[in-house]
Parts: sequence; structure tokens; C-alpha cells
Amino acid sequence: MAASKDDPIRRSGKLVAMITSPLEPEHAGHIAAAHPDRVELVYRPDLLPPPRYAADHGGDPAWRRTPEQQAEWRRQLGRAEVLWDFAVGETAGPLELSPNLRWVQTTSAGVGQYVKRLGLQESDLIVTTASGVHAQPLAEFVFAALLFHAKRLAHLQAEQRAHRWQRFHAGELRGRVMAIVGPGRIGREVALVARAFGMTVWATARDNDPARAAALGVDRLFARAELPALLAGADCLVLCAPHTPETDGLIDRAELAALKPGAVLVNIARGAVVDEDALIDALREGRVGFAALDVFRAEPLPPDSPLWDLPNVLVSPHSASTADTENAKLTDLFLRNLAHYLDGEIDLMAPVLDKRRLY
Amino acid sequence: MAASKDDPIRRSGKLVAMITSPLEPEHAGHIAAAHPDRVELVYRPDLLPPPRYAADHGGDPAWRRTPEQQAEWRRQLGRAEVLWDFAVGETAGPLELSPNLRWVQTTSAGVGQYVKRLGLQESDLIVTTASGVHAQPLAEFVFAALLFHAKRLAHLQAEQRAHRWQRFHAGELRGRVMAIVGPGRIGREVALVARAFGMTVWATARDNDPARAAALGVDRLFARAELPALLAGADCLVLCAPHTPETDGLIDRAELAALKPGAVLVNIARGAVVDEDALIDALREGRVGFAALDVFRAEPLPPDSPLWDLPNVLVSPHSASTADTENAKLTDLFLRNLAHYLDGEIDLMAPVLDKRRLY
Repeated sequence: MAASKDDPIRRSGKLVAMITSPLEPEHAGHIAAAHPDRVELVYRPDLLPPPRYAADHGGDPAWRRTPEQQAEWRRQLGRAEVLWDFAVGETAGPLELSPNLRWVQTTSAGVGQYVKRLGLQESDLIVTTASGVHAQPLAEFVFAALLFHAKRLAHLQAEQRAHRWQRFHAGELRGRVMAIVGPGRIGREVALVARAFGMTVWATARDNDPARAAALGVDRLFARAELPALLAGADCLVLCAPHTPETDGLIDRAELAALKPGAVLVNIARGAVVDEDALIDALREGRVGFAALDVFRAEPLPPDSPLWDLPNVLVSPHSASTADTENAKLTDLFLRNLAHYLDGEIDLMAPVLDKRRLY
Repeated sequence: MAASKDDPIRRSGKLVAMITSPLEPEHAGHIAAAHPDRVELVYRPDLLPPPRYAADHGGDPAWRRTPEQQAEWRRQLGRAEVLWDFAVGETAGPLELSPNLRWVQTTSAGVGQYVKRLGLQESDLIVTTASGVHAQPLAEFVFAALLFHAKRLAHLQAEQRAHRWQRFHAGELRGRVMAIVGPGRIGREVALVARAFGMTVWATARDNDPARAAALGVDRLFARAELPALLAGADCLVLCAPHTPETDGLIDRAELAALKPGAVLVNIARGAVVDEDALIDALREGRVGFAALDVFRAEPLPPDSPLWDLPNVLVSPHSASTADTENAKLTDLFLRNLAHYLDGEIDLMAPVLDKRRLY
């Protein structure tokens, strides 16, 4: 499929691109100013829920459009060929709402399961994701968590509250083994920093090819069948695999039992990658020494989940990828892709969701 | 000075090396086993205070030798040519206590002022320090603190205590400017990790030579006269300079006023490098957004210091350099230096304290 300039939609006027999740006027202004002769940007913050924090793409869930607003919203969606994000608050399919739709730039990386649920796997729709935009904040979250634990900051905080000066020793990241499940863009960013800290980095892969390990910037790759060896040797396990049928329930009770005793687990993937009940048991027994969790089986994490009160758990409300810099980065990404789209360089658009493999 | 094999002391028997601060038997055993024919290792844990944590080189301050123990301690010190550490609990000069003393391997990096106080600046004593051994734990502490602040972990902890799930945005290290005062071994380690995180790294130096900047692994060097520009542009200021007459009071009220508003300050150098009263004022006003302090004007930090209770301060009891791995590293360092010393390769011993420049 190519979006050529002879396209029937395009010939009748400008390309209609619509912002369908909250975005600051500053960033929308940059987009509107990029191709004023070729693109009509529909930016209607009045039809979008107010954001609760920087890069809140969902917006206030209590907010509702009036019937008049909803009609206008649907009318505009009906004109759009390009969307910034899947339309917030809509349950209807994107291709029904926007018959001209050809490309959606999402603001999330992990949209595979969502695209499957929307029944878009067989469509020609181009879905570019935010994969990569979140790699850096997520990598920073991983090390915030690892260092919080290794440097015993909770102990320091307690000592400080008591005005108590007792020298003590902390742990060290250098020389420890980090195991990364899912060495994609996020995993590679994590590996890069881990090596700067002097850690040994292992990762899962389809095979254990040393050349591929070097290309990924890790010390050793473990094929799927070698997962138990990876778990047994890891001082910390970082989960950043996409949620696919292959990774669903990947870290189950048996895998947690195979982990090196006292290991640290960081989950920035999806809650469904881990058996949460088994993890709670392992944390209570100290078999998992510490866990930093940004994702959960059910989100929001239910108020009565034991995870909230476990002293060796750091709960993050699926916000580890969210930084104050995010929308500026997404705007840059969208503008790069928009320029390619306008020029018919569909093959240069990136990162494109593989609708079959779902990442 | 060379410790040749024709040395009058050495000829009369084995070299006497003495452990004068707490050390695990395992590590002392490695040292004793290295040169059994040439070195007599005096390892008398019964004459040393019990350690309170791994790599506690001071030991329990309440512990005292009995008069008999003190006599034996002094007798052994009198025989020693080589010391592992300056003798714990002694106020007398090392050269008076150990007339044959030629080399001390310290377990600390910042011993310059101590050596000056002991009046050793004019002596021929070789002082090798632990410089480098602490670089990694200190660099890890720096990023533990920076990420604790940037990733708003205190906010996360409060939310977790309240079982509250509210998505939020954190800050990011990538793209921020780190200014390092004192790009020695610790500073270079910090710079290496900072660049892996995608930070821009500036550092102080005698001049602003770009070639030297590249060699140090930083983006830009600032000469002493350019300190205000460095401070004005820095998102975080990491102090890791040795305490010398030149750095005493370096970060005074005027320098804190010149800092970029809201900047983060990490002090892993010495308390005397910063005007503590001015820092407290800057923290109260929020001009300094957050400070992680491992060192203070007076240590232990007095219980009534306002620093304990400031919400934007992390107090660490001069333990940021202390990791569970430290004594193993010090043992390796001592054994390398001992081999050189035995072979008369004094020039290969490292890192040697420059007794004039005091680092």
C-alpha cells in the first residue's frame, strides 16, 4: 500500500490528520506549522479529556463529551486519514469511525493486544508505535529501582527520620548479573547502562548465538530452553518483553522457584508476563528479595492487593515510561513519520507495528 | 627510595607486614598465603576493634585494648615495615610507633589532610591509598540519589503507603547537564555512567582544553574562572574533589546562588568543600531542589542539624563508598602493591598519595 499523491482522498484537498488524545497546544502548534499547505490538522482540545499529568494520553476518565461534542467529535473522526493515537474514549472500531483511515501513530509501545482486540490484524492500516520513546525513561526506572535496593535507600530514610548516624555497608551493582527477558529497544537501553555500571548482562533470545549477543550489547544470550539457567544465575531479572501469546505467563511459579535466591525482579513489561500470586508468595518468603513493579495483572492495582504492603516491593502505577519530555519526543516522531507519509515513503516510517507478531 | 633486597631490615629476616584495621580472616588468609617465605603477616584480630559492618575500618569506637593488649599491639607495631592502614585508635605518629615503617596501604582515598596532620608530608613514607576502590560504589550512590529524585521515588512510596493508584510523570536524566567538580577517578566513573544515560557531562579542570575533555570522557571542561557558568548551566552538581586548600569552601553562598534554580547537589567529597549553612538556606528556599549528602562539616552529623529534617535532603552517614565487596578489592590492591614492593618496583605501586598535593 502506498499513499501516493494521486490518491482520491488526497486529491480532493489537504490530508486530514487528527489529534485524538490530549496534547499540549505547543506541540500541536509544531505539527500544524510543519506542512500548512498539505495537511489540515484537526486539534480540538475541547473534545478531549483534560490530562492529569504530562503525557497523560488517557486524560481524566470522569470527563464526558456532551452530545453536541460527541457529534462533532464523530464528524471530525469521519474525515480523518491520519490519527495521532487511537481515539480516546471510543469503543467502536477505528475503521468504522474513520472510513478514510490509513495511518495511526500511537502514543504507546505495547499496543499489539489492543490492535488484535480491535480486529485490525488483517487490515491495511499502518500502525506506528511509540516504541523507543519510552526506552530511556523505562531504563532509568529500572536503575532507580535497582539502586534504591542495592544502596539500601529505605534503610537510609529510616535512619534519617531517627536522626541516627550509623555507618553501614550497601551492595554494589558492579559484577552482578542482570538477566533481561525481551532484549528489544528497552532491553538494549537497559543493557547499555548496565554495562556502564560494570554489570554482566544476559538476555533471552531465540537462540544463543554469540554474534547476536555482541550486536545486542549483552554478554550472553540464552535460548528459550535455557531459561532455568538464566534464572539461576541472575542477581536481577528485568522483564521488558512485549505481551504476546509466547510471553503470557512466562514467569510462572516454576520460574520463580528457579531464580537465584534473593534476586531482584523488575517488571516493566506487562502484568500478564508474571504469575502474580506466585510472585507474592516468593516475595513473602524472600526468595525474590525485592521487586519493582510498574505493571500488574489488574490495573489499577486493587486496593486490597497484598503487593501494596509488602516491605520488599516498590509499586509504580504504570507510569515508569512517563516523563515530562515524552510529548516533545512523540511530536518529533510523528513529524518524521508524517513527512515520509506525505512523500509516499511508507517503508521509511518507523517503528511500525507488526500486526501479526503484535510488536 | 627503593626497598632493595639488600636492605638491612629485610636481610635480618622476613618483611613484617601488619594489619592494623579490622579485616575478615578470609582476606588476611589470602595475604598471608601470597609470600609465605618472604613476608611475616601480623594479623591479630584480638588487638583490633570489632567491625560493625562490612569494610568497617574504624571498628567499634567503644572498644578498648587492655593494658596487656596495648603493650603487645605497640610491640608488633614496632616491628612493622609495612602497614595495612594507619593504626586504628593511635594518636602517636606512625614513624614513632613503627621506626622501620616504609609503606602504608590505606583503606581510604581521602587521606591527604590526615597525612598532613600526622606531619608526614616531608617523610619518605610511601602511602598508597584506596583511590579507585571506592569509585564504583560512589558512582552508584550518585545515580541512586539522582534517580531517587528524578523518578520521584519518595512520591511513589507515599502513594504506595496510601494504596493509591494515580498515574503521574517523572523527570528524566537523559539530556540533562551534569557538572562534576573534581574529575578524578570517581568523577570519571560518574561521567562514564552519566553518558550511558544520555546526559551531557561538564567538569571543572585547570583549563578548558577540549582534548583533555575528550580524554576524561566529558563533553566540556570549565576552568576555575568559569565556575559560575558551569553552575548556571548544571541540572545537577556532583562534588567529588579531594579536600585540599584549593577546594576548601569552594561551594560557598555565592556559588550556590549562581546554581541553576532547582538543581540537584550530590556531595561525596568532603563536607568542608561546601558552606553548610548556605546550603541549608538554599535547600529551604528550594534554590537547590534536592541534595544527597554523604559528608558533612561535622561527622557524625549532630542530631540537631536541620539537614536531618529537610524534605529535599537525603542524609548518608559517610557510607556511600562502603560496599560489601570492598575488602576483597582492597586485598587485591594490597597484594598487587606488595608484589611490587617485594621486587623493588616502587614506581609501579599505585595509587600513591602525592604528599605535597595531598591527593
